[in-house]
Amino acid sequence: MMIVTTISEMQQIADDYRRNGKKIGIVPTMGCLHEGHLSLINLAKHHADVVITTLFVNPSQFGPTEDFEKYPRDFERDNKLAESAGTDILFVPSKEDMYPSDHLTNINVERITDVLEGKIRPTHFRGVATVVGKLFNITKPHIAVFGQKDAQQTVVIQQMVKDLNNDIKIIIAPTVRESDGLAMSSRNVYLSTTERNESAVLYQSLQLAKQLIDEGERNCSTIISEMTKLITSKPSAKIDYVLISNASSLEELVTLQTGCKILVSLAVRFGTTRLIDNIIHTKK
Amino acid sequence: MMIVTTISEMQQIADDYRRNGKKIGIVPTMGCLHEGHLSLINLAKHHADVVITTLFVNPSQFGPTEDFEKYPRDFERDNKLAESAGTDILFVPSKEDMYPSDHLTNINVERITDVLEGKIRPTHFRGVATVVGKLFNITKPHIAVFGQKDAQQTVVIQQMVKDLNNDIKIIIAPTVRESDGLAMSSRNVYLSTTERNESAVLYQSLQLAKQLIDEGERNCSTIISEMTKLITSKPSAKIDYVLISNASSLEELVTLQTGCKILVSLAVRFGTTRLIDNIIHTKK
Repeated sequence: MMIVTTISEMQQIADDYRRNGKKIGIVPTMGCLHEGHLSLINLAKHHADVVITTLFVNPSQFGPTEDFEKYPRDFERDNKLAESAGTDILFVPSKEDMYPSDHLTNINVERITDVLEGKIRPTHFRGVATVVGKLFNITKPHIAVFGQKDAQQTVVIQQMVKDLNNDIKIIIAPTVRESDGLAMSSRNVYLSTTERNESAVLYQSLQLAKQLIDEGERNCSTIISEMTKLITSKPSAKIDYVLISNASSLEELVTLQTGCKILVSLAVRFGTTRLIDNIIHTKK
Repeated sequence: MMIVTTISEMQQIADDYRRNGKKIGIVPTMGCLHEGHLSLINLAKHHADVVITTLFVNPSQFGPTEDFEKYPRDFERDNKLAESAGTDILFVPSKEDMYPSDHLTNINVERITDVLEGKIRPTHFRGVATVVGKLFNITKPHIAVFGQKDAQQTVVIQQMVKDLNNDIKIIIAPTVRESDGLAMSSRNVYLSTTERNESAVLYQSLQLAKQLIDEGERNCSTIISEMTKLITSKPSAKIDYVLISNASSLEELVTLQTGCKILVSLAVRFGTTRLIDNIIHTKK
């Protein structure tokens, strides 16, 4: 595995691969790699000749009161894990190269960034879209892999790619979970033992939603209320939101129509740690 | 010359050129080609193996009260002129393919778009940056040529390319002028005979500014007032602005410092036709 730290070198290498007819896949990460990331790298490997994993804790997607400074960083560990999963190039740019002090340009995706996570974190998806747009121009990939765990991010990136005509195939990988169902996340390390145990309720609540939908429940407020009851039975859980939306437009749903692809998503705090999770389900 | 109308075909052709080691140059235009555009195509030809001229009247850079519908269009004429200047591929996408009804993404360059033209046309540069970003992803160029006539546009595009890491060299071509100094523009066809004659005052006023600066004048308001006097001596001229700015940051200047690269720019209406022009000059 090669480690590349400068933007111009990365662009040159990408050009060379492309000229030699190699298919480039990219997996953008903020490091602190876990099995979820490794599954993305694995999937990229299936779809491309060369896999570039990018490792950059992107300041522009953190809000002013969020955890940019304390976001977990362990380069040596990430380095080994990325290589073990089959990364060919680890791209690790500096903050100063990615966002010099005279940076003035942002990519904004409207409407679908105003709901769910975007409602609570108003500049988050502008930061995500901009850094992903930059990484696309730096690594020049044919395909890019993102995890379903960040459901809204997958919708925003796909919209951006369509609107800006990036000639890149976006592949969404399923969420990887711990044995009790908790979605893998870099933030799980912050959980106390009690919080960690109680956090399994998130996946249970999503499975409950699926069951209710399959049993014929069409009223979203009923489903949300049952999920809320289950989640708040855990003393350390504080709900930010539990929502049922159209999986493509992200519009909030009131009643479920047959055939509709539904996103059931939630954000819940356990102590100071905020976790998100979701499932996509089609109403039969 | 090949005419390409679909985005996916254009991307495929660009990929093929790149794989064969060909250097691609792009000249983005809104059609109604004149000698200014032809000089851009010519310059692109010097710097690239393949020149793609794009022809798209971009709705997103016109304000709601501006002249999108009546903007001059003459495909047959543009076709012949583009070919005669050495265009290899004329890319002519449809409005529906470029901006489908569910388009949600914009590229915003901050601060430098709030002054000069951007102050009067608040969404103009968002439209320009977005469409140029799209055209870059569609034509995959190594170089792109823009005219100095749209001075602020050249600064905005260069900032965007730097910030989003587009691996593209931006080349700025000097303004081509009629024999009396009027800058070539697609909008010149709107001028009545009187207006056309009087519009030569714009270049005269820019030359006057240059002369005053070279003679030692450092006070911007004095220079602007001399230019204003000259321009308003023409009955059909109505000034939108005459400004002296730092050529890189576009910040308005009060006093000229030695060695400073200066942009002297103006927008003036002759009847209903709005013309812009500028010079770049370094204070010795």
